[in-house]
Amino acid sequence: MIRQGVGTLKTSPIETDCLVIGAGPAALFLIFELGLLEISCQVVDALPYPGGQCVALYADKPIYDIPGSVRSTGRELVDALLAQAAPFKAQFHLGQQVTSIEQQADARWMAMTSAGQAFLCKTMVVAAGVGAFMPRKLAHLDLSPWEGKQVFYAPTENLAPQHIVIYGGGEEAVQAALAGLAQQTASLTLVYRRDKLDVEANLLATFDQAVKEGQIQFKVGQIQSLSQSHLSLASPDEHTEDIAYDKLWVLQGLSPQLGPVADWGLDMQKKQIKVNTENFATSVTGIFAVGDVNTYPGKRKLIVSGFHEATLAAYGVAELVYPGQKIALEYTTASPRLHKLLGVADPSA
Amino acid sequence: MIRQGVGTLKTSPIETDCLVIGAGPAALFLIFELGLLEISCQVVDALPYPGGQCVALYADKPIYDIPGSVRSTGRELVDALLAQAAPFKAQFHLGQQVTSIEQQADARWMAMTSAGQAFLCKTMVVAAGVGAFMPRKLAHLDLSPWEGKQVFYAPTENLAPQHIVIYGGGEEAVQAALAGLAQQTASLTLVYRRDKLDVEANLLATFDQAVKEGQIQFKVGQIQSLSQSHLSLASPDEHTEDIAYDKLWVLQGLSPQLGPVADWGLDMQKKQIKVNTENFATSVTGIFAVGDVNTYPGKRKLIVSGFHEATLAAYGVAELVYPGQKIALEYTTASPRLHKLLGVADPSA
Repeated sequence: MIRQGVGTLKTSPIETDCLVIGAGPAALFLIFELGLLEISCQVVDALPYPGGQCVALYADKPIYDIPGSVRSTGRELVDALLAQAAPFKAQFHLGQQVTSIEQQADARWMAMTSAGQAFLCKTMVVAAGVGAFMPRKLAHLDLSPWEGKQVFYAPTENLAPQHIVIYGGGEEAVQAALAGLAQQTASLTLVYRRDKLDVEANLLATFDQAVKEGQIQFKVGQIQSLSQSHLSLASPDEHTEDIAYDKLWVLQGLSPQLGPVADWGLDMQKKQIKVNTENFATSVTGIFAVGDVNTYPGKRKLIVSGFHEATLAAYGVAELVYPGQKIALEYTTASPRLHKLLGVADPSA
Repeated sequence: MIRQGVGTLKTSPIETDCLVIGAGPAALFLIFELGLLEISCQVVDALPYPGGQCVALYADKPIYDIPGSVRSTGRELVDALLAQAAPFKAQFHLGQQVTSIEQQADARWMAMTSAGQAFLCKTMVVAAGVGAFMPRKLAHLDLSPWEGKQVFYAPTENLAPQHIVIYGGGEEAVQAALAGLAQQTASLTLVYRRDKLDVEANLLATFDQAVKEGQIQFKVGQIQSLSQSHLSLASPDEHTEDIAYDKLWVLQGLSPQLGPVADWGLDMQKKQIKVNTENFATSVTGIFAVGDVNTYPGKRKLIVSGFHEATLAAYGVAELVYPGQKIALEYTTASPRLHKLLGVADPSA
């Protein structure tokens, strides 16, 4: 029995043959391969959209090493994988993480998400990539006592007439500061540890103009401490300044964190889940792992690896979902059963 | 030292880092992955065109399980893989088989093809699929003494004024008979063991008309024996008939044959080459195997498997081509070196 974390049950559990943790390219192709084997699944991802790194990190950047695709952007690849998996109508539960899993007396798993959704599943496939993409927190200061009250990792609403402080030096922080100009804030301050902001020239010019006109204040320094109403800023020359604030937005982009999966009792190696390459099973029966989250001799963290791993994992899942049955391989070029599942009545059509 | 078969050296050997045996989808993606690792290769295939089964068996049939491709025909997939591999300018040697290999004192391999081309290579990757697609021979009669003189597995030229006998019951045989009508043959006879020909209705009607008009003779029976000028045909009612002939074309389509590879001393299991899934190395150092030709625990004969196997084999080849060097993984989305190799100067272009 493995039990980690605590969740609040929102609705009755969704029963499923397979819970897919992650919605990146390996997970999306897994939905397709499970579908060909007539296994339905539910998908959970921490991001608010499917696609994982492909959308979060390189939506508009070209990828050249997807077999048979000379060039496709991350978003194009994800759109194609979603279209391919569409016939199988997987249900997505986005913007939430699986926080706890507990094995039941009948060997099924009860999994609970951070949003309070429970799943009762025969199998789970961890396709969590390099981890859940979570907002990057301050490295040197624990803000957890203030999170959700004064401190947020995304812009908040209804800013008038509040003192807003934004911490960050990239596009996300600068764009949020400029967007704040349209609201009746009492003040807008951008704080960053360096005086050089990492944004493209046009955006920087717009920001500099707003600073020059006194609409935004730009301060260089590290946040040293926080109270309910003030924060203390240490400048590079070691002067300390107190700033009155109502809300602090920490906007430093996303960073992957493996999160609760690391505590589920799976055999790990260097923060990665060890798998058997025969079916990508982990050390715990019923739990599989595919894509960047797993490791095995020869592992290369490439999308093409995740596709093959997902395929073999689907057969591994099928052996548990249909115990004692021989799982035959059929070809999508020729099988009338697969054509029916895919909704392509005539193979020459 | 492994030595099999005998070839006649046509030209001096081509030196290469990697000889790829087969030109199906796994082989084509292997060219690409080797290219990213700056390893050049030479490719040999028994078919007269690249693409393997994808083109030989289902050129116009849709495939639905290529990741990120909702639907592509065999030919479309092969065209895309050829375009993807194009920057690496692999040289294709088609319509020939590797018949013999021999290891040299410096550990390189000398490989010889049926067309007399020799290769001196550091590594070899067998990507031979279900085997080389060879013309299907008569099952019950060895015609080898007559092959290339009286017996051919493709239509011959300059038919006038010869007696042509064609053996076969499918489209290839019937089309060849009808095409022969345009030439001044002394006679055209189609022989098949059954009276029912396996061709579509329009073609059958055209053929039947030609038979009715006496332009083609159709005889049902098995060829029992052959001399230089006559063949003996046993009809289903066990009558025997002698037919004068100049050329016999046996046109029964293609059948895959693993061929000489089976005799190279590689560890095999049920006619497939056993590999280590870490790098898809065979039991013989320097020889790798990817795609349908190999076997390992969990193996599924799918194109997606071949793509991943080819990728890991490329790294295995790289370790032998660049001994002692650490082979780093780089991403095509981000690496300037890979962009240069691919001829895409600007990654956002």
